[in-house]
Amino acid sequence: MGPLCCHYGPVHRSNGDTPHRSIVAGTDFLHLAIDEAPSGGKSEWLTQQIRLALADGRLPVGSRLPATRVLAGELGVSRGVVTEAYQRLVEDGHLAGRGRNGTIVVGAPATTAAKRPTPARTPSPRFVFAAAPHADVFDAMRMTPARIDLSPGRPDLAAFPRAAWLRAERRVLERLAASDLAYGDPRGTPELRVAIANWIARNRGIRAEPGEILVVAGTAQTLTLVGQVLRSDGISAVAMEDPGSLGARQHLQNCQLDTPPVTVDSEGMRVDELRATGATAVLLTPAHQFPTGVVLRGGRRKELTHWARESGGLIIEDDYDAEHRYDRAPVPALRSVLTENVFYAGSVSKLLAPALRIGWLLAPPKYRDALVDAKRFADLGNAALPQLVLAQFMESGAMERQLRHLLRHHRRRRDAMVEAVGTRLPGAIVHGTAAGLHLTITFDAGFADTDIAAAALAHDVKVHPLSWHCQRPLQPGLVLGYAASTPTEISEGVATLGSVLRQLS
Amino acid sequence: MGPLCCHYGPVHRSNGDTPHRSIVAGTDFLHLAIDEAPSGGKSEWLTQQIRLALADGRLPVGSRLPATRVLAGELGVSRGVVTEAYQRLVEDGHLAGRGRNGTIVVGAPATTAAKRPTPARTPSPRFVFAAAPHADVFDAMRMTPARIDLSPGRPDLAAFPRAAWLRAERRVLERLAASDLAYGDPRGTPELRVAIANWIARNRGIRAEPGEILVVAGTAQTLTLVGQVLRSDGISAVAMEDPGSLGARQHLQNCQLDTPPVTVDSEGMRVDELRATGATAVLLTPAHQFPTGVVLRGGRRKELTHWARESGGLIIEDDYDAEHRYDRAPVPALRSVLTENVFYAGSVSKLLAPALRIGWLLAPPKYRDALVDAKRFADLGNAALPQLVLAQFMESGAMERQLRHLLRHHRRRRDAMVEAVGTRLPGAIVHGTAAGLHLTITFDAGFADTDIAAAALAHDVKVHPLSWHCQRPLQPGLVLGYAASTPTEISEGVATLGSVLRQLS
Repeated sequence: MGPLCCHYGPVHRSNGDTPHRSIVAGTDFLHLAIDEAPSGGKSEWLTQQIRLALADGRLPVGSRLPATRVLAGELGVSRGVVTEAYQRLVEDGHLAGRGRNGTIVVGAPATTAAKRPTPARTPSPRFVFAAAPHADVFDAMRMTPARIDLSPGRPDLAAFPRAAWLRAERRVLERLAASDLAYGDPRGTPELRVAIANWIARNRGIRAEPGEILVVAGTAQTLTLVGQVLRSDGISAVAMEDPGSLGARQHLQNCQLDTPPVTVDSEGMRVDELRATGATAVLLTPAHQFPTGVVLRGGRRKELTHWARESGGLIIEDDYDAEHRYDRAPVPALRSVLTENVFYAGSVSKLLAPALRIGWLLAPPKYRDALVDAKRFADLGNAALPQLVLAQFMESGAMERQLRHLLRHHRRRRDAMVEAVGTRLPGAIVHGTAAGLHLTITFDAGFADTDIAAAALAHDVKVHPLSWHCQRPLQPGLVLGYAASTPTEISEGVATLGSVLRQLS
Repeated sequence: MGPLCCHYGPVHRSNGDTPHRSIVAGTDFLHLAIDEAPSGGKSEWLTQQIRLALADGRLPVGSRLPATRVLAGELGVSRGVVTEAYQRLVEDGHLAGRGRNGTIVVGAPATTAAKRPTPARTPSPRFVFAAAPHADVFDAMRMTPARIDLSPGRPDLAAFPRAAWLRAERRVLERLAASDLAYGDPRGTPELRVAIANWIARNRGIRAEPGEILVVAGTAQTLTLVGQVLRSDGISAVAMEDPGSLGARQHLQNCQLDTPPVTVDSEGMRVDELRATGATAVLLTPAHQFPTGVVLRGGRRKELTHWARESGGLIIEDDYDAEHRYDRAPVPALRSVLTENVFYAGSVSKLLAPALRIGWLLAPPKYRDALVDAKRFADLGNAALPQLVLAQFMESGAMERQLRHLLRHHRRRRDAMVEAVGTRLPGAIVHGTAAGLHLTITFDAGFADTDIAAAALAHDVKVHPLSWHCQRPLQPGLVLGYAASTPTEISEGVATLGSVLRQLS
């Protein structure tokens, strides 16, 4: 199943484990009479026909539409006509998917003139989810703007320092050499690599030369580049924390890597289980485990270090929100003690904004050249101007100010979330409040957490069910982002969750 | 062999066709006495030892160094020590390569205190090239800033409209919604896709909905994404123009695609030869063939269209500098008539700056979803701010003004280049002057064009030998970029080429 947005950004496709309950629309789809379509307007006509069928209930939520190739064949039109129609309806939020799992109905038009109106007794949430919703339904959730969005993974975007950013940009444009606008070093601009080296030294205890740093388009790109390079090196599996980020799992699996799950308990990843998988590489989030918030404890760090040194094991350290620690200084990065074994991934997504698409990667020396090559073939390197602006921003001290501001700000929002959960969801257990942009709650319930998320979305509140981030069954739970929402929104959103839970119980 | 920079950006690795004349440094390398190295400073010590050997001629230009693994084993140090030392010397411009072909000496330090000074009679160009230089030598050229750089592929970067760009950025930052800073649509921001749709409609005769446009990180990324998708679809070869861009060839080959060569004559690509290759896909530059400058003539366009329609053949249309036409309006893009068969690639690299890393891709409908997925896994989509600024810039008319400015400007520079070639290289034949940012010259000579380029670089003038962009032997030639150089630089650079040619003759 797919979350809307996690710390690797939106994810979008199921691993296909969930059995489908959706109806596959058969042949002779909707009894369409193609000769009614105006020539040159077939796609528009088809869109309208499907829209009518959605509105009048002939295509209920959860139905699967015929493959574009099949429908095009049946109608005797080019496949583009069908693709175009589906695409428009996806963009309108009525359909979702179009991956290997086909195209699924996720919502009915609210305003289309319908031949047969939907029965009046049905309330009209914008989306209705089946009890065991098809994975692609969650694709639709990504496109559904909810009034209150408690998805994890975003800092307070309203706090983005626009004026300081523009000042830094002006300074960069004034001083820029024309040659800075040419094709550049695929590893990134020297200025930004220096600024990053300083940042990770001050904040994460990592000593690195600027020449070792690879500027990337965020941690999502890091995972794809590292995945490619490991795969080329004959590695076929990267163990992952379970629970652990679905987005990360999808990125690794897209590189043809298996992701054997390893239990996370109150001390962090179980290193004995990691050994048992036989995997030679592992992805983890030691500073603030996603989504449980557990910090990898001293004993486990030692065990993991021992595993890496003894077996030459490789660690991808996703340090996604390590700077966001409220109660004490963050633990040093694993990379600070394990240079030869650790791929270290950081980014500005949680410090400034995901939309900047800037991150950094430190690799074990033996993989460095292969990663520079991979980055070069991917895109020849990040764009120069935003790198230079960010370097200016970091070196001027503005980044540290921004972090301090966010910490005060986010801490208030965390407190609001903890209070709201205590009041409105009294049976829930809260995890991972010491750091980060989200917390996780678990509870006893006789229904799936996906049901809660679906019902909440119908009430305009978006959250991640914990099960999205689990490879093996676990207690129901929710991952609740608080950083990007106001205390009022948080309190209102959690109240909605409370009433949804009561209705389902 | 590898050019410094072409219209896909810097390229960096040979296909390894050229037999090596370099000396492979054997075991017991330099008789290094590792116990002289201070503990904790082994890498620094090794760097210095190699530097001395470079300076005193024990490691002549063209030598190959031992693999890092081998040398580390011999010295009994960790591989990182050796890698680090090589890396420093690469950064200093003394070594190059470190790919599959190993690490090669490309230059001696000019200032290091040497035990045995180099003989005084030798002039000291910064780089000396062997007669048949190893491919990796060209990697070093990329790192060599030449005083006069006539590499193709860059517009006049001094003309980058800094003030207008900053104004657009201010406007964007004023109006931005916080949600624009979150994870966005991997296809790009709606604003930019609208602006691109309008741009290609006005300038390239292409009708496309914004929803069909995929914003990418330049044409280099387009080639990698399309290459991946074609490979997944079972396609194993993409035919290419010969001569044709080496950078493009490397990108496709990196996707495990063969690139059968197809002759380009005065009418463009030979479609009969394309048929004979049996390839089901082809990459070409119909508006202004790279590097010959030939426009695909009407008859050939018809043949190609027929090939695509009849066989379902796929065309990657690299429209890299089509807007830069001096003498008449550009020919419409192939995409404008072949929607179902053409991947259309455009970018702002030749209109504004390669460092922006923004381009666009239109795909045949059947590949659209796969490409969106590939882009999502690559980097979750381009950064939002530069997209919004570019959209503002395009929609305000500033882009059209920039293009008009560049055309006047570049035309003067082209005229300066044509005149300089006529005066200084009287035997040369000039090709492809009607459009673009470069022209190509060919000549009769008893030596390789790579020799000319190497000798020119020793005199601080950088050009591309035509042979870099050829898969099969052709007449010697040079590809001469003029857009990024002043008329004075052009005249001086071509004068240098003239004297180099006379010396070699």
